[in-house]
Amino acid sequence: MPVGTQASVKALRNEALEELGAEIILANTYHLCLRPGSGLIRKLGGLHNFMSWPRAILTDSGGYQVFSLSELRKISDDGVRFRSHLDGSEHLLTPEKAVEIQLALGSDIAMVLDECIETPAPRDKAEAAVARTTAWAKRARAAFLDHTARNGECPANDELQQWQFGIVQGATFADLRRESARQLLEINFPGYAVGGLAVGEPHAMTCDMAGEVTALLPRDSPRYLMGVGRPEQIADYVALGIDMMDCVLPTRAARHACLYTSEGRVLIKNARYAEDQNPIDADCSCSVCTRYTRAYLRHLFATGEITAAILATHHNVHFYLDIMRQIREAIEFGNLAKFSSEMHARYSAEPA
Amino acid sequence: MPVGTQASVKALRNEALEELGAEIILANTYHLCLRPGSGLIRKLGGLHNFMSWPRAILTDSGGYQVFSLSELRKISDDGVRFRSHLDGSEHLLTPEKAVEIQLALGSDIAMVLDECIETPAPRDKAEAAVARTTAWAKRARAAFLDHTARNGECPANDELQQWQFGIVQGATFADLRRESARQLLEINFPGYAVGGLAVGEPHAMTCDMAGEVTALLPRDSPRYLMGVGRPEQIADYVALGIDMMDCVLPTRAARHACLYTSEGRVLIKNARYAEDQNPIDADCSCSVCTRYTRAYLRHLFATGEITAAILATHHNVHFYLDIMRQIREAIEFGNLAKFSSEMHARYSAEPA
Repeated sequence: MPVGTQASVKALRNEALEELGAEIILANTYHLCLRPGSGLIRKLGGLHNFMSWPRAILTDSGGYQVFSLSELRKISDDGVRFRSHLDGSEHLLTPEKAVEIQLALGSDIAMVLDECIETPAPRDKAEAAVARTTAWAKRARAAFLDHTARNGECPANDELQQWQFGIVQGATFADLRRESARQLLEINFPGYAVGGLAVGEPHAMTCDMAGEVTALLPRDSPRYLMGVGRPEQIADYVALGIDMMDCVLPTRAARHACLYTSEGRVLIKNARYAEDQNPIDADCSCSVCTRYTRAYLRHLFATGEITAAILATHHNVHFYLDIMRQIREAIEFGNLAKFSSEMHARYSAEPA
Repeated sequence: MPVGTQASVKALRNEALEELGAEIILANTYHLCLRPGSGLIRKLGGLHNFMSWPRAILTDSGGYQVFSLSELRKISDDGVRFRSHLDGSEHLLTPEKAVEIQLALGSDIAMVLDECIETPAPRDKAEAAVARTTAWAKRARAAFLDHTARNGECPANDELQQWQFGIVQGATFADLRRESARQLLEINFPGYAVGGLAVGEPHAMTCDMAGEVTALLPRDSPRYLMGVGRPEQIADYVALGIDMMDCVLPTRAARHACLYTSEGRVLIKNARYAEDQNPIDADCSCSVCTRYTRAYLRHLFATGEITAAILATHHNVHFYLDIMRQIREAIEFGNLAKFSSEMHARYSAEPA
């Protein structure tokens, strides 16, 4: 899922996302809640209508940003009290409130509020976070079912069927991860996410924890690993049974002139590309690679042109979506392990 | 002509310019000379090839930016010595050098180097600038004809036929304008520009001066008024016989959240648009107005999203190109004066 934090995948028009074949994007509840506000989005017909994006949208609960961006957060069993990083205004985010907001946004997939803790975490802190995450998940599920029973799925759009996903926590403790998954399975969600990973721990640890969880989750429910990943890691997660991922890497790297290619990463501002008449990636079929040269991209970045971000983002999102297409193909041909080891060889190298 | 200073119309991919029907863009010789350098562009097959823009390009001489952007400029009969505003490096721009650079860029229309003076200017200064502009125009024409006789039109592209335009100066003195035009006509250019206007003088004065010049210039040569204009002024210039214009206004205003509509200017960041589900302009057929709302545009500007600049620029350039389409229609139906007075009524009002 390309990330459209503020109801826009940075530097891409929706038309470009459609051309790229994006079927679902992620939008951030915390940001949209502060600006323009979930009430306004609801009033304007929900997020799909507001941003004119008819394809699927997943919204997070807002919890992760409360923990990472806001000031003066105070967590209790009730919820999280925090101050906006924009204007210092005080807000209380509860499991019920996170449900209500995402129903107002009218996303296709809504995440429950979970407790995100810093890692590495001591065991007692991780245990407490799992307990609170489960208690919050129960309240969120009850609020969601109660609300939809009374009001229909989405106040902004009667036709919307929203899927609510639970989030497995447990830091880097395998037994806590399993315990968290079992507790969420008891609540019974139509989909599950694995949260609190890819926050600094080694890739092998991320895989271990994700694997502990996917082994328990039903194969016919979507399984979503949050906030990943680097190009060479994606196939590993898929091999573990992960179906969905989101990451700012392709779009953020693009704005910082880091381009992904079939040969590895290209730092396009490097002087070696000044006269390079090749496309970003000779193997790429995107509309940037079929028209523009590395020399031109380098020039646009060197001179600070907005078009640099537009073209680079377009290419990197194509690259990421193409990884998923290649993975589906590798699965069909039984080549996933080979594909994964090739990706690791290619992208663990220094960028060119 | 939309302005693509650094070989990119800011925030628009070439694909968007093509969708908008732009037939010609302007690129700035001064900027391209400093970055990436005319030698590099020549080596990479000329500007068309470098930026992947097969349609027409007009390049200015670089003189205007030398006078407005660079430091320590020193003008003599030989040319202008200046320091780059980027790195302080010293350069000498002569009439011959401006010809040589633009042949290297391989633009379709190249401008001669002229002397730009500040306005209002005393008569003796304006007289001296006309004399120097004519002397430089003679040298530029000789250099161009000599070069093309020896080397073909464009070193980067044998198939290119470059048109060299002379530039009429004379500040706000009608007799000097006429004298400048007559002197350039003697040199004999395939097209002519009117320079040194729209630099602070009243619109009526711009029209007076442009009219003095177009009355003398051949009707079958393109007549280009440089650096204009506001939407309501364009029809006036066309009525005086002007065929070509360039202006950063549509693109720059767009990036500052000022949108042009059939009802006047809209400052889209205004709170009154927060819930406005109308398009920027209900009468506009551009791909932004057919898909996105004012509320969404306002949100994108309020949150500083790059997509705000992309969508706003697209719309404003459509608006400007549409003015030209409407003017052509008005001419055919004999309605140009009516069209002009309607435009003045609409755009002299305060923005909404």
